[in-house]
Amino acid sequence: MPGTLSTLSDDYGYVILVGAGSFFVNMWLSRNVIKARKEFKVEYPAMYSDDSNEFNCVQRAHQNFLEMYPVFLSQLFIGGTNFPRLASGFGIIYLAGRVAYAKGYYTGEPKNRFRGRFMAIGLLGLLGLNIATGLRQLGFFATFPAREWGFRNC
Amino acid sequence: MPGTLSTLSDDYGYVILVGAGSFFVNMWLSRNVIKARKEFKVEYPAMYSDDSNEFNCVQRAHQNFLEMYPVFLSQLFIGGTNFPRLASGFGIIYLAGRVAYAKGYYTGEPKNRFRGRFMAIGLLGLLGLNIATGLRQLGFFATFPAREWGFRNC
Amino acid sequence: MPGTLSTLSDDYGYVILVGAGSFFVNMWLSRNVIKARKEFKVEYPAMYSDDSNEFNCVQRAHQNFLEMYPVFLSQLFIGGTNFPRLASGFGIIYLAGRVAYAKGYYTGEPKNRFRGRFMAIGLLGLLGLNIATGLRQLGFFATFPAREWGFRNC
Repeated sequence: MPGTLSTLSDDYGYVILVGAGSFFVNMWLSRNVIKARKEFKVEYPAMYSDDSNEFNCVQRAHQNFLEMYPVFLSQLFIGGTNFPRLASGFGIIYLAGRVAYAKGYYTGEPKNRFRGRFMAIGLLGLLGLNIATGLRQLGFFATFPAREWGFRNC
Repeated sequence: MPGTLSTLSDDYGYVILVGAGSFFVNMWLSRNVIKARKEFKVEYPAMYSDDSNEFNCVQRAHQNFLEMYPVFLSQLFIGGTNFPRLASGFGIIYLAGRVAYAKGYYTGEPKNRFRGRFMAIGLLGLLGLNIATGLRQLGFFATFPAREWGFRNC
Repeated sequence: MPGTLSTLSDDYGYVILVGAGSFFVNMWLSRNVIKARKEFKVEYPAMYSDDSNEFNCVQRAHQNFLEMYPVFLSQLFIGGTNFPRLASGFGIIYLAGRVAYAKGYYTGEPKNRFRGRFMAIGLLGLLGLNIATGLRQLGFFATFPAREWGFRNC
Protein backbone atom coordinates (compact mmCIF):
# COMPACT_ATOMS: atom_id res chain seq x y z
CA MET A 1 0.00 0.00 0.00
CA PRO A 2 1.56 3.30 -1.00
CA GLY A 3 1.98 5.69 1.86
CA THR A 4 2.95 3.00 4.32
CA LEU A 5 6.56 2.42 5.30
CA SER A 6 6.38 -0.94 3.59
CA THR A 7 10.14 -1.56 3.37
CA LEU A 8 10.57 -1.16 7.11
CA SER A 9 9.67 -3.84 9.64
CA ASP A 10 6.36 -3.52 11.48
CA ASP A 11 8.37 -2.88 14.62
CA TYR A 12 9.23 0.54 13.24
CA GLY A 13 5.84 1.44 14.70
CA TYR A 14 7.42 1.27 18.17
CA VAL A 15 10.10 3.70 17.06
CA ILE A 16 7.46 6.17 15.85
CA LEU A 17 5.49 5.83 19.09
CA VAL A 18 8.61 6.48 21.19
CA GLY A 19 9.13 9.60 19.08
CA ALA A 20 5.54 10.66 19.77
CA GLY A 21 6.08 9.88 23.45
CA SER A 22 8.92 12.41 23.58
CA PHE A 23 6.26 15.03 22.79
CA PHE A 24 4.66 14.36 26.16
CA VAL A 25 7.96 14.52 28.04
CA ASN A 26 8.54 17.90 26.36
CA MET A 27 5.05 19.04 27.36
CA TRP A 28 5.63 18.03 30.97
CA LEU A 29 8.93 19.93 31.12
CA SER A 30 7.35 22.94 29.48
CA ARG A 31 4.39 22.97 31.88
CA ASN A 32 6.79 22.88 34.83
CA VAL A 33 8.50 26.02 33.53
CA ILE A 34 5.14 27.78 33.16
CA LYS A 35 4.23 26.87 36.76
CA ALA A 36 7.64 28.04 37.99
CA ARG A 37 7.19 31.34 36.16
CA LYS A 38 4.11 31.97 38.29
CA GLU A 39 5.68 30.79 41.52
CA PHE A 40 8.88 32.81 41.12
CA LYS A 41 7.21 35.69 39.28
CA VAL A 42 9.39 35.57 36.17
CA GLU A 43 7.47 37.42 33.50
CA TYR A 44 7.75 36.97 29.74
CA PRO A 45 9.91 37.65 27.78
CA ALA A 46 12.59 37.07 30.47
CA MET A 47 14.18 33.69 30.01
CA TYR A 48 16.07 33.43 33.26
CA SER A 49 15.62 35.01 36.68
CA ASP A 50 18.23 37.42 38.02
CA ASP A 51 17.77 36.30 41.58
CA SER A 52 16.10 32.89 41.72
CA ASN A 53 18.51 30.06 41.16
CA GLU A 54 15.64 27.68 41.70
CA PHE A 55 13.69 29.05 38.75
CA ASN A 56 16.77 28.86 36.57
CA CYS A 57 17.18 25.19 37.44
CA VAL A 58 13.64 24.47 36.22
CA GLN A 59 14.24 26.45 33.05
CA ARG A 60 17.56 24.74 32.35
CA ALA A 61 16.08 21.25 32.78
CA HIS A 62 13.74 22.02 29.89
CA GLN A 63 16.28 23.88 27.76
CA ASN A 64 18.83 21.11 28.07
CA PHE A 65 16.19 18.64 26.87
CA LEU A 66 15.53 20.89 23.87
CA GLU A 67 19.22 21.25 23.08
CA MET A 68 19.59 17.50 22.69
CA TYR A 69 16.22 17.00 21.01
CA PRO A 70 17.37 17.20 17.34
CA VAL A 71 20.13 14.66 17.75
CA PHE A 72 17.90 12.34 19.79
CA LEU A 73 15.04 12.36 17.28
CA SER A 74 17.21 11.96 14.20
CA GLN A 75 19.20 9.09 15.69
CA LEU A 76 16.04 7.41 16.92
CA PHE A 77 14.37 7.53 13.50
CA ILE A 78 17.46 6.60 11.46
CA GLY A 79 18.91 3.94 13.75
CA GLY A 80 15.40 2.55 14.16
CA THR A 81 15.17 1.65 10.48
CA ASN A 82 17.64 -1.20 10.95
CA PHE A 83 17.24 -1.91 14.66
CA PRO A 84 13.68 -0.95 15.59
CA ARG A 85 13.49 -2.79 18.91
CA LEU A 86 16.90 -1.76 20.15
CA ALA A 87 16.30 1.84 19.08
CA SER A 88 12.93 1.92 20.85
CA GLY A 89 14.52 0.52 24.00
CA PHE A 90 17.38 3.02 23.95
CA GLY A 91 14.84 5.78 23.27
CA ILE A 92 12.80 4.84 26.34
CA ILE A 93 15.96 4.74 28.48
CA TYR A 94 16.89 8.19 27.20
CA LEU A 95 13.46 9.67 27.95
CA ALA A 96 13.40 8.09 31.42
CA GLY A 97 16.84 9.63 32.00
CA ARG A 98 15.43 13.00 30.94
CA VAL A 99 12.70 12.77 33.58
CA ALA A 100 15.24 11.79 36.27
CA TYR A 101 17.54 14.64 35.15
CA ALA A 102 14.71 17.15 35.46
CA LYS A 103 13.52 15.85 38.83
CA GLY A 104 17.07 16.09 40.12
CA TYR A 105 17.52 19.61 38.73
CA TYR A 106 14.18 20.67 40.24
CA THR A 107 15.65 20.16 43.72
CA GLY A 108 17.45 23.47 43.12
CA GLU A 109 20.81 21.76 43.51
CA PRO A 110 22.36 21.61 40.00
CA LYS A 111 24.52 18.58 40.67
CA ASN A 112 21.42 16.46 41.39
CA ARG A 113 20.66 16.58 37.68
CA PHE A 114 23.24 13.80 37.37
CA ARG A 115 20.57 11.42 38.65
CA GLY A 116 19.56 11.27 35.02
CA ARG A 117 23.02 10.58 33.72
CA PHE A 118 21.95 7.09 32.66
CA MET A 119 20.35 8.84 29.69
CA ALA A 120 23.83 8.55 28.14
CA ILE A 121 23.23 4.81 27.74
CA GLY A 122 20.25 5.60 25.53
CA LEU A 123 22.02 8.30 23.56
CA LEU A 124 25.28 6.43 22.99
CA GLY A 125 23.30 3.29 22.17
CA LEU A 126 21.43 5.18 19.48
CA LEU A 127 24.71 6.63 18.18
CA GLY A 128 26.06 3.09 17.83
CA LEU A 129 22.94 1.97 15.97
CA ASN A 130 23.32 4.94 13.62
CA ILE A 131 26.92 4.17 12.78
CA ALA A 132 25.96 0.51 12.26
CA THR A 133 23.04 1.57 10.03
CA GLY A 134 25.30 3.79 7.96
CA LEU A 135 27.92 1.07 7.54
CA ARG A 136 25.32 -1.56 6.65
CA GLN A 137 23.82 0.72 4.02
CA LEU A 138 27.32 0.97 2.51
CA GLY A 139 27.47 -2.82 2.40
CA PHE A 140 29.50 -3.58 5.51
CA PHE A 141 28.14 -6.15 7.94
CA ALA A 142 25.24 -6.70 5.57
CA THR A 143 24.87 -10.21 6.88
CA PHE A 144 25.51 -9.24 10.49
CA PRO A 145 23.80 -9.99 12.77
CA ALA A 146 23.26 -13.30 11.03
CA ARG A 147 19.76 -14.68 10.80
CA GLU A 148 20.81 -18.00 12.29
CA TRP A 149 21.82 -16.21 15.47
CA GLY A 150 18.27 -15.11 16.01
CA PHE A 151 19.29 -11.44 16.18
CA ARG A 152 17.55 -10.58 12.97
CA ASN A 153 14.63 -8.68 14.38
CA CYS A 154 16.42 -6.47 16.83
CA MET B 1 14.59 4.47 -9.77
CA PRO B 2 16.90 4.06 -6.80
CA GLY B 3 17.36 7.18 -4.76
CA THR B 4 13.74 8.22 -5.09
CA LEU B 5 11.27 7.72 -2.26
CA SER B 6 9.44 5.22 -4.42
CA THR B 7 7.41 3.59 -1.66
CA LEU B 8 5.91 6.90 -0.61
CA SER B 9 3.09 8.60 -2.47
CA ASP B 10 3.96 11.44 -4.84
CA ASP B 11 2.21 13.77 -2.43
CA TYR B 12 5.12 13.35 -0.05
CA GLY B 13 6.66 16.03 -2.23
CA TYR B 14 4.32 18.54 -0.57
CA VAL B 15 5.56 17.44 2.83
CA ILE B 16 9.16 18.00 1.78
CA LEU B 17 8.34 21.43 0.35
CA VAL B 18 6.57 22.48 3.58
CA GLY B 19 9.72 21.40 5.41
CA ALA B 20 11.82 23.52 3.06
CA GLY B 21 9.33 26.38 3.56
CA SER B 22 10.04 26.35 7.29
CA PHE B 23 13.60 27.34 6.37
CA PHE B 24 12.29 30.66 5.09
CA VAL B 25 10.14 31.29 8.19
CA ASN B 26 13.28 30.67 10.24
CA MET B 27 15.27 33.07 8.07
CA TRP B 28 12.63 35.78 8.46
CA LEU B 29 12.63 35.41 12.24
CA SER B 30 16.40 35.42 12.33
CA ARG B 31 16.66 38.53 10.17
CA ASN B 32 14.25 40.35 12.49
CA VAL B 33 16.54 39.61 15.43
CA ILE B 34 19.54 40.94 13.52
CA LYS B 35 17.65 44.15 12.72
CA ALA B 36 16.53 44.50 16.34
CA ARG B 37 20.12 44.04 17.51
CA LYS B 38 21.03 47.14 15.52
CA GLU B 39 18.00 49.14 16.60
CA PHE B 40 18.36 48.37 20.30
CA LYS B 41 22.16 48.20 20.23
CA VAL B 42 22.49 44.67 21.60
CA GLU B 43 25.96 43.50 20.65
CA TYR B 44 27.13 39.94 20.17
CA PRO B 45 27.59 37.68 22.12
CA ALA B 46 24.78 38.99 24.38
CA MET B 47 21.63 36.98 23.83
CA TYR B 48 19.17 39.18 25.69
CA SER B 49 19.11 42.86 26.58
CA ASP B 50 19.27 43.95 30.21
CA ASP B 51 17.02 46.93 29.66
CA SER B 52 15.01 46.53 26.46
CA ASN B 53 11.98 44.34 26.89
CA GLU B 54 11.12 45.03 23.28
CA PHE B 55 14.34 43.48 22.02
CA ASN B 56 13.82 40.46 24.24
CA CYS B 57 10.37 39.96 22.72
CA VAL B 58 11.89 39.81 19.23
CA GLN B 59 14.58 37.42 20.41
CA ARG B 60 12.09 35.15 22.18
CA ALA B 61 9.81 34.93 19.14
CA HIS B 62 12.71 33.38 17.23
CA GLN B 63 14.00 31.23 20.08
CA ASN B 64 10.56 29.78 20.78
CA PHE B 65 10.30 28.82 17.12
CA LEU B 66 13.69 27.09 17.37
CA GLU B 67 12.72 25.26 20.58
CA MET B 68 9.76 23.62 18.82
CA TYR B 69 11.59 23.09 15.53
CA PRO B 70 12.86 19.50 16.15
CA VAL B 71 9.48 18.16 17.15
CA PHE B 72 7.74 19.97 14.31
CA LEU B 73 10.11 18.70 11.62
CA SER B 74 10.20 15.13 12.84
CA GLN B 75 6.41 14.89 13.15
CA LEU B 76 5.94 16.49 9.76
CA PHE B 77 8.24 14.07 8.00
CA ILE B 78 7.07 10.93 9.84
CA GLY B 79 3.34 11.64 9.92
CA GLY B 80 3.62 12.74 6.29
CA THR B 81 4.62 9.26 5.17
CA ASN B 82 1.08 7.98 5.76
CA PHE B 83 -0.92 11.18 5.50
CA PRO B 84 0.98 13.48 3.15
CA ARG B 85 -1.84 15.91 2.41
CA LEU B 86 -3.07 16.23 5.99
CA ALA B 87 0.49 16.59 7.27
CA SER B 88 1.25 19.31 4.71
CA GLY B 89 -1.93 21.14 5.68
CA PHE B 90 -1.19 20.94 9.41
CA GLY B 91 2.38 22.04 8.67
CA ILE B 92 1.17 25.14 6.82
CA ILE B 93 -1.22 25.98 9.69
CA TYR B 94 1.65 25.61 12.15
CA LEU B 95 3.97 27.87 10.15
CA ALA B 96 1.23 30.49 9.70
CA GLY B 97 0.70 30.34 13.47
CA ARG B 98 4.41 30.93 13.95
CA VAL B 99 4.27 34.10 11.86
CA ALA B 100 1.21 35.34 13.81
CA TYR B 101 2.93 34.48 17.11
CA ALA B 102 6.01 36.48 16.12
CA LYS B 103 4.03 39.47 14.86
CA GLY B 104 2.09 39.50 18.13
CA TYR B 105 5.28 39.24 20.19
CA TYR B 106 6.91 42.01 18.14
CA THR B 107 4.34 44.48 19.53
CA GLY B 108 6.41 44.39 22.72
CA GLU B 109 3.43 43.10 24.68
CA PRO B 110 4.18 39.42 25.46
CA LYS B 111 0.56 38.33 25.74
CA ASN B 112 -0.06 39.32 22.10
CA ARG B 113 1.98 36.31 21.08
CA PHE B 114 -1.18 34.31 21.70
CA ARG B 115 -2.45 35.60 18.38
CA GLY B 116 -0.53 32.65 17.00
CA ARG B 117 -2.02 30.12 19.38
CA PHE B 118 -3.82 28.44 16.49
CA MET B 119 -0.43 26.88 15.70
CA ALA B 120 -1.50 24.26 18.26
CA ILE B 121 -4.00 22.92 15.72
CA GLY B 122 -1.10 22.20 13.37
CA LEU B 123 1.10 20.70 16.05
CA LEU B 124 -1.53 18.53 17.71
CA GLY B 125 -2.78 17.48 14.29
CA LEU B 126 0.71 16.31 13.39
CA LEU B 127 0.99 14.51 16.74
CA GLY B 128 -2.24 12.66 15.95
CA LEU B 129 -0.93 11.68 12.51
CA ASN B 130 2.27 10.39 14.12
CA ILE B 131 0.47 8.21 16.60
CA ALA B 132 -1.76 6.92 13.79
CA THR B 133 1.33 6.25 11.64
CA GLY B 134 2.99 4.34 14.47
CA LEU B 135 -0.10 2.24 15.14
CA ARG B 136 -0.64 1.49 11.46
CA GLN B 137 2.96 0.36 11.11
CA LEU B 138 2.29 -2.06 13.97
CA GLY B 139 -0.71 -3.41 12.07
CA PHE B 140 -3.57 -1.54 13.73
CA PHE B 141 -6.05 0.27 11.50
CA ALA B 142 -4.16 -1.03 8.49
CA THR B 143 -7.32 -0.83 6.45
CA PHE B 144 -8.45 2.48 7.93
CA PRO B 145 -9.25 4.83 6.37
CA ALA B 146 -10.84 2.41 3.94
CA ARG B 147 -10.29 2.96 0.24
CA GLU B 148 -14.02 2.87 -0.46
CA TRP B 149 -14.47 5.91 1.74
CA GLY B 150 -12.31 7.93 -0.55
CA PHE B 151 -9.97 8.89 2.26
CA ARG B 152 -7.14 6.87 0.88
CA ASN B 153 -4.99 9.71 -0.34
CA CYS B 154 -5.07 11.96 2.65
CA MET C 1 15.97 -7.64 3.62
CA PRO C 2 13.35 -5.93 5.72
CA GLY C 3 14.74 -3.31 8.05
CA THR C 4 17.25 -2.09 5.53
CA LEU C 5 16.69 1.09 3.57
CA SER C 6 16.48 -0.99 0.42
CA THR C 7 14.86 1.63 -1.81
CA LEU C 8 17.66 4.09 -1.18
CA SER C 9 21.03 3.91 -2.85
CA ASP C 10 23.92 2.39 -0.89
CA ASP C 11 25.47 5.85 -0.83
CA TYR C 12 22.81 6.87 1.68
CA GLY C 13 25.19 5.26 4.16
CA TYR C 14 27.48 8.29 3.73
CA VAL C 15 24.57 10.57 4.59
CA ILE C 16 23.91 8.62 7.79
CA LEU C 17 27.58 8.70 8.75
CA VAL C 18 27.76 12.48 8.22
CA GLY C 19 24.73 12.74 10.52
CA ALA C 20 26.52 10.61 13.11
CA GLY C 21 29.62 12.77 12.63
CA SER C 22 27.66 15.84 13.66
CA PHE C 23 27.29 14.16 17.06
CA PHE C 24 31.03 14.50 17.59
CA VAL C 25 31.10 18.15 16.51
CA ASN C 26 28.35 18.76 19.06
CA MET C 27 30.32 16.91 21.73
CA TRP C 28 33.43 18.98 21.02
CA LEU C 29 31.48 22.25 21.28
CA SER C 30 29.80 21.06 24.47
CA ARG C 31 33.08 20.05 26.07
CA ASN C 32 34.54 23.46 25.31
CA VAL C 33 31.67 25.11 27.18
CA ILE C 34 32.24 22.83 30.19
CA LYS C 35 35.94 23.74 30.20
CA ALA C 36 35.11 27.44 29.91
CA ARG C 37 32.68 27.15 32.83
CA LYS C 38 35.60 26.06 34.99
CA GLU C 39 38.01 28.64 33.64
CA PHE C 40 35.62 31.59 34.00
CA LYS C 41 33.85 30.21 37.07
CA VAL C 42 30.34 30.22 35.63
CA GLU C 43 28.32 27.86 37.79
CA TYR C 44 25.22 25.95 36.81
CA PRO C 45 22.39 26.81 36.23
CA ALA C 46 23.66 30.16 34.86
CA MET C 47 23.69 30.09 31.08
CA TYR C 48 25.69 33.23 30.43
CA SER C 49 28.22 35.20 32.44
CA ASP C 50 27.41 38.71 33.60
CA ASP C 51 30.96 39.90 33.24
CA SER C 52 32.94 37.59 30.96
CA ASN C 53 32.36 38.29 27.31
CA GLU C 54 34.85 35.58 26.53
CA PHE C 55 32.77 32.92 28.25
CA ASN C 56 29.66 34.11 26.47
CA CYS C 57 31.43 33.75 23.12
CA VAL C 58 32.20 30.10 23.88
CA GLN C 59 28.62 29.49 24.99
CA ARG C 60 27.15 31.18 21.91
CA ALA C 61 29.31 29.16 19.52
CA HIS C 62 27.65 26.02 20.89
CA GLN C 63 24.15 27.47 21.17
CA ASN C 64 24.21 28.76 17.61
CA PHE C 65 25.17 25.29 16.42
CA LEU C 66 22.21 23.85 18.35
CA GLU C 67 19.81 26.44 16.95
CA MET C 68 20.57 25.35 13.39
CA TYR C 69 20.80 21.66 14.24
CA PRO C 70 17.16 20.66 13.46
CA VAL C 71 17.14 22.24 10.03
CA PHE C 72 20.58 20.86 9.20
CA LEU C 73 19.72 17.28 10.16
CA SER C 74 16.33 17.21 8.48
CA GLN C 75 17.66 18.66 5.24
CA LEU C 76 20.63 16.32 5.26
CA PHE C 77 18.46 13.22 5.68
CA ILE C 78 15.71 14.26 3.26
CA GLY C 79 17.88 15.79 0.52
CA GLY C 80 20.21 12.82 0.87
CA THR C 81 17.53 10.40 -0.27
CA ASN C 82 17.79 11.69 -3.83
CA PHE C 83 21.30 13.13 -3.84
CA PRO C 84 23.31 11.14 -1.31
CA ARG C 85 26.77 12.18 -2.46
CA LEU C 86 25.99 15.86 -2.88
CA ALA C 87 24.15 15.93 0.47
CA SER C 88 27.08 14.25 2.22
CA GLY C 89 29.48 16.74 0.66
CA PHE C 90 27.38 19.74 1.65
CA GLY C 91 27.01 18.25 5.12
CA ILE C 92 30.77 17.99 5.54
CA ILE C 93 31.22 21.58 4.34
CA TYR C 94 28.60 22.71 6.86
CA LEU C 95 30.24 20.88 9.76
CA ALA C 96 33.68 22.20 8.80
CA GLY C 97 32.16 25.68 8.74
CA ARG C 98 30.78 25.06 12.23
CA VAL C 99 34.26 24.26 13.55
CA ALA C 100 35.71 27.38 11.90
CA TYR C 101 32.82 29.48 13.28
CA ALA C 102 33.48 28.21 16.80
CA LYS C 103 37.25 28.67 16.57
CA GLY C 104 36.69 32.22 15.39
CA TYR C 105 34.19 32.94 18.16
CA TYR C 106 36.57 31.46 20.76
CA THR C 107 39.02 34.29 20.09
CA GLY C 108 36.62 36.42 22.16
CA GLU C 109 36.05 38.74 19.22
CA PRO C 110 32.49 38.04 17.96
CA LYS C 111 33.11 39.14 14.40
CA ASN C 112 35.76 36.44 13.97
CA ARG C 113 32.95 33.89 13.95
CA PHE C 114 32.48 34.88 10.30
CA ARG C 115 35.52 32.72 9.51
CA GLY C 116 32.96 29.95 9.39
CA ARG C 117 30.58 31.75 7.10
CA PHE C 118 31.33 29.26 4.32
CA MET C 119 28.96 26.97 6.22
CA ALA C 120 26.24 28.78 4.25
CA ILE C 121 27.40 26.92 1.12
CA GLY C 122 26.59 23.66 2.88
CA LEU C 123 23.28 24.84 4.25
CA LEU C 124 22.00 26.50 1.09
CA GLY C 125 23.22 23.54 -0.93
CA LEU C 126 21.16 21.23 1.24
CA LEU C 127 18.16 23.55 0.93
CA GLY C 128 18.46 23.32 -2.85
CA LEU C 129 18.63 19.53 -2.70
CA ASN C 130 15.51 19.51 -0.52
CA ILE C 131 13.50 21.63 -2.89
CA ALA C 132 14.68 19.46 -5.79
CA THR C 133 13.76 16.30 -3.84
CA GLY C 134 10.28 17.67 -3.10
CA LEU C 135 9.69 18.64 -6.73
CA ARG C 136 10.96 15.31 -8.03
CA GLN C 137 8.66 13.45 -5.68
CA LEU C 138 5.78 15.46 -7.17
CA GLY C 139 6.89 14.33 -10.64
CA PHE C 140 8.85 17.35 -11.83
CA PHE C 141 12.33 16.77 -13.21
CA ALA C 142 11.79 13.06 -12.72
CA THR C 143 14.21 12.35 -15.51
CA PHE C 144 16.65 15.07 -14.52
CA PRO C 145 19.54 14.70 -14.16
CA ALA C 146 19.37 12.29 -17.07
CA ARG C 147 21.18 8.99 -16.77
CA GLU C 148 23.04 9.56 -20.02
CA TRP C 149 24.69 12.61 -18.52
CA GLY C 150 26.33 10.46 -15.91
CA PHE C 151 24.83 12.53 -13.08
CA ARG C 152 22.63 9.72 -11.91
CA ASN C 153 24.47 8.82 -8.77
CA CYS C 154 24.97 12.22 -7.25
